[in-house]
Amino acid sequence: MAIPTVEINDDAVRIIDQTLLPGEYRLIEIRTKEEMWEAIKKLRVRGAPAIGVAAAGALAVEIGRSPASGAGEMLGELEAAADYLATSRPTAVNLFWALERMKAAARRNRERSSGELKKILLSEARAILAEDRAMGRSLGEAGAELIPEGSGVLTHCNAGSLATAGFGSALAPIYVAWERGKRFKVFADETRPLLQGARLTAWELGREGVDVTLICDNMAAWLMKKGKIDLVITGADRIAANGDGANKIGTYSVALAARAHDIPFYMAWPSSTLDLSLASGEEIPIEERGAEEVTTIGGKRIAPEGVKTCSPAFDVTPHELIAAHVTERGLIYPPYEKNLRQFAGPE
Amino acid sequence: MAIPTVEINDDAVRIIDQTLLPGEYRLIEIRTKEEMWEAIKKLRVRGAPAIGVAAAGALAVEIGRSPASGAGEMLGELEAAADYLATSRPTAVNLFWALERMKAAARRNRERSSGELKKILLSEARAILAEDRAMGRSLGEAGAELIPEGSGVLTHCNAGSLATAGFGSALAPIYVAWERGKRFKVFADETRPLLQGARLTAWELGREGVDVTLICDNMAAWLMKKGKIDLVITGADRIAANGDGANKIGTYSVALAARAHDIPFYMAWPSSTLDLSLASGEEIPIEERGAEEVTTIGGKRIAPEGVKTCSPAFDVTPHELIAAHVTERGLIYPPYEKNLRQFAGPE
Repeated sequence: MAIPTVEINDDAVRIIDQTLLPGEYRLIEIRTKEEMWEAIKKLRVRGAPAIGVAAAGALAVEIGRSPASGAGEMLGELEAAADYLATSRPTAVNLFWALERMKAAARRNRERSSGELKKILLSEARAILAEDRAMGRSLGEAGAELIPEGSGVLTHCNAGSLATAGFGSALAPIYVAWERGKRFKVFADETRPLLQGARLTAWELGREGVDVTLICDNMAAWLMKKGKIDLVITGADRIAANGDGANKIGTYSVALAARAHDIPFYMAWPSSTLDLSLASGEEIPIEERGAEEVTTIGGKRIAPEGVKTCSPAFDVTPHELIAAHVTERGLIYPPYEKNLRQFAGPE
Repeated sequence: MAIPTVEINDDAVRIIDQTLLPGEYRLIEIRTKEEMWEAIKKLRVRGAPAIGVAAAGALAVEIGRSPASGAGEMLGELEAAADYLATSRPTAVNLFWALERMKAAARRNRERSSGELKKILLSEARAILAEDRAMGRSLGEAGAELIPEGSGVLTHCNAGSLATAGFGSALAPIYVAWERGKRFKVFADETRPLLQGARLTAWELGREGVDVTLICDNMAAWLMKKGKIDLVITGADRIAANGDGANKIGTYSVALAARAHDIPFYMAWPSSTLDLSLASGEEIPIEERGAEEVTTIGGKRIAPEGVKTCSPAFDVTPHELIAAHVTERGLIYPPYEKNLRQFAGPE
């Protein structure tokens, strides 16, 4: 599990440029908030937890270069930079959570010198990264029991090592179960339009020796009918108070098919994905992406010029379709309204 | 509706090479059974009715060149050529139906001279083509009433002019309703792996001025949830006696989603698609296609080298999910077992 998805150095955040995978494995260094905004927008770094870690790192690096003499001035710069980075993608709540945490760390230390504050920010970003790594391991241990020996596991998009700093969310239980010697088959939806399943999930699972089969999104329901799938695990980009979960477009379709075949559907996420300020999934903003992601693949045009498209980046799976949520602090079962509040603890 | 999908000349079958659309519109001439076998296998000509017409035409052209002096010898050649063409694709029953019809015409005329027999075969193939054109119009008229003004209609794959010699099957009701002045929105699933929806349906509907929006397959369920879709119409490659229908992979997934949202799901097909010899969809053979259709798009590799895939070309939608079948002789409602037998008439 040595995929260096995000690393935070003193003067740069180093990421794998995931737009080039699986054809090319290239590490790039991000030195400014503008570069990080572009990297998140263009999905060079993607996956809700990884975006949070990368943005926190970019904030620390950006402020690390600030010539501001006082912590007050620096705090202003940090707030502005955080607000700017928050506009890169609207759906994943981990991004806002990580930026808020960086702001809170700065506010707590507003009496320190600017030099001290810079160090504190860097260490806060690294703490977020370290916690994300630990989260993946814990989440994997909590979820591994859900995967029976000899079963078929379907996943959608990429919620693996490439979506986090560590083990991933949806793929964490798969990695832990595999590591413990269980053998089973993973089916990876290719995940149009941007093919994160084909490009990233198939790549990282294959790299670890996990038995993975790539399918087109529209084959999943048929494989369920044919008895090839025993459970579904996906990641999540935001979870509302009632247990509804936003995740990559296509997740809802998979959840409906799983329900029709009495197959359990799980969403796996770190606690920073939970957003109790939203009563239900209806309130989760859904990012709409450009037409070219639908009409072209890797630069090659696949549709007639001028055709209309729509391209929601995410959809919301209603809580009734979710058998359990898998988190770094264990499994959460219905009733979600009550159990998610209990999970979050006192405000 | 002047798309010359298949034309039968005396010495060649002329088709649009659909593998090149929408980038290039090229007509090619097929002169031998081997060329037709390749064209069907490679999907240069595709769509269950169009394959039947094209194969019948190729058979007539092939036999038209035969040096055989007697009708008996010629009949042997024809049977061998028909059996060979039947191996090009295993799922669409119209192919076998059209080839059988050509064989039957030859057998009925075994007393004729070889010159006369050649003419009869050519005229039988042209009759199949003409009937297919008439079928599209009738089917469109039967189905147009299903499309309300201002509605949203989802279709999957391409069952339009490019899948037949005429109006198509799934798209025929759309064309007729549009021609009559109804206005509505069509959503076309792109239909991975071979993108017939993006390449062909979006192209031909756009060419006729129909309001079409292209989506990825995995977006359909979400658009249903959002209230954008009022009905689904797809084609079919084979219909069993109980009303189960095989169609392009992904159709089953759409039908499940339609059911979950109480949206009617219709299958449109010419009567040659009905195969009463099969009790249910369980008995329909499903063609498995090569891995490269999943791992590459237009020659561009989108998945890691060596990854396993599966790629069923079709799936079967159980009759319980089908609100009605739309045919050139009207709508067929449940109970299908009884009503399909009635539709087929006495054996």
